Amino acid sequence: MSEMTPESVSQLRELVRASDPPGLGEILEPLHPADIAEIMGGLENEEKVRILKQLDTEKAAEVLTVVDEHSGQALLELLTDTEVVSLLGEMPSDDAVDLMAGMPPEKSKQIDALLPSDEREILHELMEFDEDTAGGIMEAEKIAVTEEATIRDAIGLVRLQADEIENIQNVYVVNEAGQLIGSVPLLDLLRHEPGTRVKDVMDDHVIAVPVDMDQEDVASLFGKYDEFTLPVVDDTGKLVGRITADDILDVVEEEASEDIVRIVGTVEEEIGETSPLKISRARLPWLVVAMLGQILNAVIMSHFAVPLEKAVALAFFIPLVIGTAGGAGIQAAVVVVREIAVGELSPGFIWRRVFRELQVTVFNGLVLGAVLFALVMLWQRDVGLGLLLLISLFTVTVAAAFMGAFIPLLMNRMKIDPAIATGPFITVLSDITGLVIYMTFATYYVAHISR
Amino acid sequence: MSEMTPESVSQLRELVRASDPPGLGEILEPLHPADIAEIMGGLENEEKVRILKQLDTEKAAEVLTVVDEHSGQALLELLTDTEVVSLLGEMPSDDAVDLMAGMPPEKSKQIDALLPSDEREILHELMEFDEDTAGGIMEAEKIAVTEEATIRDAIGLVRLQADEIENIQNVYVVNEAGQLIGSVPLLDLLRHEPGTRVKDVMDDHVIAVPVDMDQEDVASLFGKYDEFTLPVVDDTGKLVGRITADDILDVVEEEASEDIVRIVGTVEEEIGETSPLKISRARLPWLVVAMLGQILNAVIMSHFAVPLEKAVALAFFIPLVIGTAGGAGIQAAVVVVREIAVGELSPGFIWRRVFRELQVTVFNGLVLGAVLFALVMLWQRDVGLGLLLLISLFTVTVAAAFMGAFIPLLMNRMKIDPAIATGPFITVLSDITGLVIYMTFATYYVAHISR
Repeated sequence: MSEMTPESVSQLRELVRASDPPGLGEILEPLHPADIAEIMGGLENEEKVRILKQLDTEKAAEVLTVVDEHSGQALLELLTDTEVVSLLGEMPSDDAVDLMAGMPPEKSKQIDALLPSDEREILHELMEFDEDTAGGIMEAEKIAVTEEATIRDAIGLVRLQADEIENIQNVYVVNEAGQLIGSVPLLDLLRHEPGTRVKDVMDDHVIAVPVDMDQEDVASLFGKYDEFTLPVVDDTGKLVGRITADDILDVVEEEASEDIVRIVGTVEEEIGETSPLKISRARLPWLVVAMLGQILNAVIMSHFAVPLEKAVALAFFIPLVIGTAGGAGIQAAVVVVREIAVGELSPGFIWRRVFRELQVTVFNGLVLGAVLFALVMLWQRDVGLGLLLLISLFTVTVAAAFMGAFIPLLMNRMKIDPAIATGPFITVLSDITGLVIYMTFATYYVAHISR
Repeated sequence: MSEMTPESVSQLRELVRASDPPGLGEILEPLHPADIAEIMGGLENEEKVRILKQLDTEKAAEVLTVVDEHSGQALLELLTDTEVVSLLGEMPSDDAVDLMAGMPPEKSKQIDALLPSDEREILHELMEFDEDTAGGIMEAEKIAVTEEATIRDAIGLVRLQADEIENIQNVYVVNEAGQLIGSVPLLDLLRHEPGTRVKDVMDDHVIAVPVDMDQEDVASLFGKYDEFTLPVVDDTGKLVGRITADDILDVVEEEASEDIVRIVGTVEEEIGETSPLKISRARLPWLVVAMLGQILNAVIMSHFAVPLEKAVALAFFIPLVIGTAGGAGIQAAVVVVREIAVGELSPGFIWRRVFRELQVTVFNGLVLGAVLFALVMLWQRDVGLGLLLLISLFTVTVAAAFMGAFIPLLMNRMKIDPAIATGPFITVLSDITGLVIYMTFATYYVAHISR
């Protein structure tokens, strides 16, 4: 087992921090690139570069492909252009493109000029694709044979390219126009006689990814068909690259991050971002929208100033009623949005889902209302106030949960990304609805019931 | 390309809904199991079973492994015990165990009695493991040879078992005690001469997963080492199974769901759950805790009744100040927790991260405060009130964001799962802190400044 213990990781970090020890190269040499990247994780950039320089180019390139993107960029800044060029040359094309795309324009132009022409051509092609699409995450490297080839030919090609291409899973079969017509898994190369024609044994029901497909949909394809590698084709059906499951793991994590941070109104790009200004820019819009919603709330409250002045105790419970109900609403919204995202919810079942949500919330609203009634009785010994709060909390909770479930389902039906509903939208809407309902009941209470 | 269009999916659904058409079997036969599962997604359980019964057992079993868990269970309820037993027999052991574990105890006992003894033994062994560990997600099927074996032997074994075992990626090498000592990827079976001993070419730095490792850590291993299959060993180093990347995709989605729904205080098990009572039970605790926190808020406010009675306008802004600041706090918490989860944050950098958060929030707090000041001036034309709100909002926002960033980092350092902090904890804490700060400033304002 080559996995490192936390102790050995810290020891190695200490070693690098201390100085530029002789023999560091020999210690690092047998380690897995991912372990070296882990050691680098706790170090300053200058110390990381010290490690990189001890490695041969191939290993250093592998390490660079597994460190996080922000560190990778920072390290490239500390290397000379020729060092960067030789590192890029050793990487799979998808990783090289990502690093190129993340460089400051000035630097990437300099690097570009130094690249060997064949490599530059591949990278330029890949750079054309939107980074959130199949083209943006695929690598150009793949093994392809024509339909005339035999199993022997295919094995020969695999042997020839095995050192250059990582994670070979299939040999793809293309026609004269380069269009994908089939696939032969490595397993089948082992199972068939060397003289067999690949076209006689190939799987001709290949699932191919269109090069402009959104990466989230590509991840769904991997999840749906349980594949480890899928070929990518352009709009003429020509084989242009392939995507491997390890890239998909990254996509799934990235999309999950996006869904998570969206709930609090910020963007995925913020994860790991170090510039406070960029973080501010990501977060401020939601905060401003939320605050404007709250201003509207304050204006609404000012219209109810008379009952509030008569019974200031009513004000004590405003954050409680709208906060608790808002919590129930956002619970409903987040669960429904997630169910849509993971495919647990068919578009045909909107009303059934909303009805279930109402069942849940009527029950929860009653429990919360009863607890609140009991606590208010203990504290204020006022049945009227207790009942006002019970009825308000129940009504507002049911209203918030209804909106929380219904709005994302409606958006999904209308082909709008429902995740937007988990952000400020539901929160602000349920706050305003809640306040209006509560203050309306409270006004009636002040006028007719309160002592 | 075998992927189906949405149109063909709906057409097939209509066909099944309409009746039990002759020829349905022939239409379904060439389809990928995942496509059949997709068609089933929009149908009622009785209609789903109609589809299953048209398929041969192997295909029906494959379909059952890809439908979501709730549907899978519901379908098994509609089949006879002998039908269930033969379906389980055709499945990879990990899927069979999951289905067994989800059955009502009565049913699973009946099925168990009908299983062939070798199969029952494997399933019983797998059932011993916690479902959130490596043992809980691995399949027992794997290909293993002894170190004396040659490449030819290994290829022979692969050919023999290729139909029984899905997604073969490696042949594992074990010693006489069954302990894992190496691995040979399929690619290397193609590259070496048939007479070569596997021990001479095997990779002896195999990354092996301990059978009791938490599934989240297993997913990290896959992510870290970019592997598609990893072997699983028990505490004596004996090879007991293997985990494939497709299962890891499910784990990553499940863990992401967990992190997402935890923000709103519910549990991952709720996703796709259909029993309103179970959903209530998942959500109520958080709602009750949040409400108790709000009761505390109401009590605190009641202690500030005097300034509130003097200037009821102060009450209008309570939801605004604590709501907006709470939003900033939960933004900080969610981003930090996510950064920890995806490994973007080293434990050594707590203070640097908190400092960055403060930079962000001081800026955001000033912007929000300024906007609020301007709006209050427009609305109430009261510089004193405007300044009170500016200073309050700024202070409360900075305090909330500090807690939002610091608490999860501290919890992580103390080896407590920081995700807990994204739930009620930060929300309630920041609400209470915010209210105390605002009301303290407000009291001073009423006593010394207000007109």
